[in-house]
Amino acid sequence: MKALILVADGFEDLTLFVPWYRLREEDVAVTLAAPLLHAVGGTHGYVVEPDAVIHEVNPSDFDVLLIPDGLAAERLRLREEAVDVARTFVEDGMKVAAIGHGLQVLISAGALDGRRVTCAPGIRDDVRAAGAIYSDEATVLDNTLLTGRGPDDLPAFAQALMAHLGTPRKARVKNGNAPRS
Amino acid sequence: MKALILVADGFEDLTLFVPWYRLREEDVAVTLAAPLLHAVGGTHGYVVEPDAVIHEVNPSDFDVLLIPDGLAAERLRLREEAVDVARTFVEDGMKVAAIGHGLQVLISAGALDGRRVTCAPGIRDDVRAAGAIYSDEATVLDNTLLTGRGPDDLPAFAQALMAHLGTPRKARVKNGNAPRS
Repeated sequence: MKALILVADGFEDLTLFVPWYRLREEDVAVTLAAPLLHAVGGTHGYVVEPDAVIHEVNPSDFDVLLIPDGLAAERLRLREEAVDVARTFVEDGMKVAAIGHGLQVLISAGALDGRRVTCAPGIRDDVRAAGAIYSDEATVLDNTLLTGRGPDDLPAFAQALMAHLGTPRKARVKNGNAPRS
Repeated sequence: MKALILVADGFEDLTLFVPWYRLREEDVAVTLAAPLLHAVGGTHGYVVEPDAVIHEVNPSDFDVLLIPDGLAAERLRLREEAVDVARTFVEDGMKVAAIGHGLQVLISAGALDGRRVTCAPGIRDDVRAAGAIYSDEATVLDNTLLTGRGPDDLPAFAQALMAHLGTPRKARVKNGNAPRS
């Protein structure tokens, strides 16, 4: 399985690293794609080196697209190639996962009309204006589109992402508590 | 299952959040214990509210102790109650997981004699002086003691932590690649 993550300066650090490392834990091959092949920094100062530039990315090489939270989304939505990649994933019915402000890229791609989503509260009016049905929930899954509210909801997002990618959601750690239904 | 994480100002953000959220994803009940019941900050600026003060913690209430990387370890090793908690976990044969500089707390607890470990490269001479057998590896498991090198190795650490806690390590995401043996 292969995952594509769109990054740019100003990514929200945890919403990049937690899903990225979670996918790597599952031996998923992850490609970080940025507007240029330069190191990019998160709002909390972590720095990552992209593996690819977005304009050379072929969406059909991947199984899922992930767009983290953060100011990076406003940079990405100004890049036509980033918006095109996001639109292709959605229109071709491929799996997409976006967190917080990551949905701004999907708004610019015209990809949210009629979709049920969650997002950062500060952009809920924008996703509604883009035709989406917004819910204030930790995560929302609408067919191929998984959305997450933000960094505080990452444990739930990781659960949902694993389920979205075909992981059987079971109590994988021996747990005295009743597993969630 | 219940996990205890020791935190103090100067924790390395990813080595707290990635395992913490990974455990929460598995519905493990996690308690963050700090020297005082005050918010503490990571070296990258994330802030967390502790659930408990360390001197009120009863190790036998938990299944595993986690000590993240970061300057926080030098604060924790100066707190007798933190060192006592770590010593109790090790001496009672309970599961312990420490990353990077987190092993400094185990050095101060006199808990590393004869143990195979990895750690942050900058303290390898100290863990050797404490009697440990150091390896420059992403993770090392020695019976009940799991150690990790640092933030860059968190995907491998998460895999090892899940295995340490009794998770069957399988390709949980449908993966075209051969699973690691």
